[in-house]
Amino acid sequence: MQTRFRGLLVPVATPFDEALAPDVEALVAHCEWLLAQGADGLALFGTTSEATSLGLDERLELLEAVVAAGIPATRLMPGTGTCALTDSVRLTAHAVGLGCGGVLMLPPFYYKSVDEAGLADYFAELIERVGDARLRLYLYHIPPVAQVGIPFGLVASLAARYPETLAGLKDSSGDWEHTARLIAEFPQLAIFPGSEVFLLEGLRAGGAGCITATGNVNPGGIQAVYAGWQTERADALQAQASALRRAVQAHPMIPAVKAILARQHGHGGWRRVRPPLVALEAAAEAALLEAVTTAGLEIPG
Amino acid sequence: MQTRFRGLLVPVATPFDEALAPDVEALVAHCEWLLAQGADGLALFGTTSEATSLGLDERLELLEAVVAAGIPATRLMPGTGTCALTDSVRLTAHAVGLGCGGVLMLPPFYYKSVDEAGLADYFAELIERVGDARLRLYLYHIPPVAQVGIPFGLVASLAARYPETLAGLKDSSGDWEHTARLIAEFPQLAIFPGSEVFLLEGLRAGGAGCITATGNVNPGGIQAVYAGWQTERADALQAQASALRRAVQAHPMIPAVKAILARQHGHGGWRRVRPPLVALEAAAEAALLEAVTTAGLEIPG
Repeated sequence: MQTRFRGLLVPVATPFDEALAPDVEALVAHCEWLLAQGADGLALFGTTSEATSLGLDERLELLEAVVAAGIPATRLMPGTGTCALTDSVRLTAHAVGLGCGGVLMLPPFYYKSVDEAGLADYFAELIERVGDARLRLYLYHIPPVAQVGIPFGLVASLAARYPETLAGLKDSSGDWEHTARLIAEFPQLAIFPGSEVFLLEGLRAGGAGCITATGNVNPGGIQAVYAGWQTERADALQAQASALRRAVQAHPMIPAVKAILARQHGHGGWRRVRPPLVALEAAAEAALLEAVTTAGLEIPG
Repeated sequence: MQTRFRGLLVPVATPFDEALAPDVEALVAHCEWLLAQGADGLALFGTTSEATSLGLDERLELLEAVVAAGIPATRLMPGTGTCALTDSVRLTAHAVGLGCGGVLMLPPFYYKSVDEAGLADYFAELIERVGDARLRLYLYHIPPVAQVGIPFGLVASLAARYPETLAGLKDSSGDWEHTARLIAEFPQLAIFPGSEVFLLEGLRAGGAGCITATGNVNPGGIQAVYAGWQTERADALQAQASALRRAVQAHPMIPAVKAILARQHGHGGWRRVRPPLVALEAAAEAALLEAVTTAGLEIPG
């Protein structure tokens, strides 16, 4: 039986080559580095991964390449939610077929103000069409970006109807009260805040860890909080991780993470983003690197 | 040389069979009916078409089937904009290859608050990658749904850089002042308001027509406004079309349009929507049908 994810999961940033095609070699190397640094799982194709900027075939091929390169599928929680039921079914069935430990599922996010009943129909239809007992579904609540959120009533109805399949939820609302209420109301689910600033408070409340963009650049520091949360050093470790987070999120998150990765991996190609995102300008990048170094991130070179 | 679209364009609703797969036969019949009733063009795969609820392959296959069935490709303006540059390129190149008269292009709509420079990069990269002189691009501004809009500066920069390719814009802001400013600032573009309530005012200001959901059910009444806009009956025709529009938009637009089509085409399957949308309940449908009949829509049966 599939174990639920816990700890630090990283929405893995996607490197691009000069033609803006995914750079498989650099992606696999980054996945290996993240696992070696202490990431418990890899949430490929998240918001930080620019997943919605990747084509359907690119997502299918990239996941296959990562698994073929030897990254353990059980450690993978790829994003497989799109606006279209049929494409979401296809990506999800593909991920389950490759043995992924779970999938992280956006709601369909084009139409706004949709009925909760329509969202429930969507997820139920998706689960039925995938029709695989191995599926472990983590809902993705990120209203600042997707606008369409995952209401409490939807979580409750899916948890009741699919107790084996519905495994957890990532809460990127940025609202601790919301996360705390999810943890309290759904003790059977693995609830992950979408930022490490809530990691310690979340663990103390019964949360499962965190799934966080800055896990790409500070996996060791965040894993230290998770590993040490019941020790007397917990608050100090959390404060250190939070300081680094704040230094990064003073800039647009995705280009900031990639600018740091360019330095960490000694590979300037990491700076590339796909439009409509825009890379950091040189001055912003310099300020960012100084701030994260001051916050304690050790960058080689 | 490709003529620009003018008049009434209909974002064609997509019928689904019992398995929620697109019903090609019913779609082709509806396209033929719309053209016979006076539609000047068919904007397949618009918001009303539930295009974002269709998978990539479904969109490719459906467009091919419509063209193969004899609907003239020159009358088609399919939606080809997705969140991902590579999928948008694929859909656009495919539509151009089939001879479509134009494409209607959403901006990438997942990431919010993106820089105008990033949107400009996106559209420029898309046009360059399609790399086909036959491409005629109509931008799709629908901030109430997509949230990401098409700023004036973006229109200006694309119009300057791609004067042959950039052909027009659909403005579904619902804000007449915004539409009027687009018409005034970009006389070289075909500007279509996204509702027939602005049709007459738009034509008098120099607009090109309208692209409107309710064109699915009232093509004749809207075409009468377009055909008669310079006659003394223009205001009366507009008032009649607007009254019908108001009766429909008292309900959720897409299920309302489909409920009327079920009656008009004598085919109950038209009521089906894909989740996350929800079909009208029976009481709402009855109220809708009474209201549109009162507003002058003749429904057989």
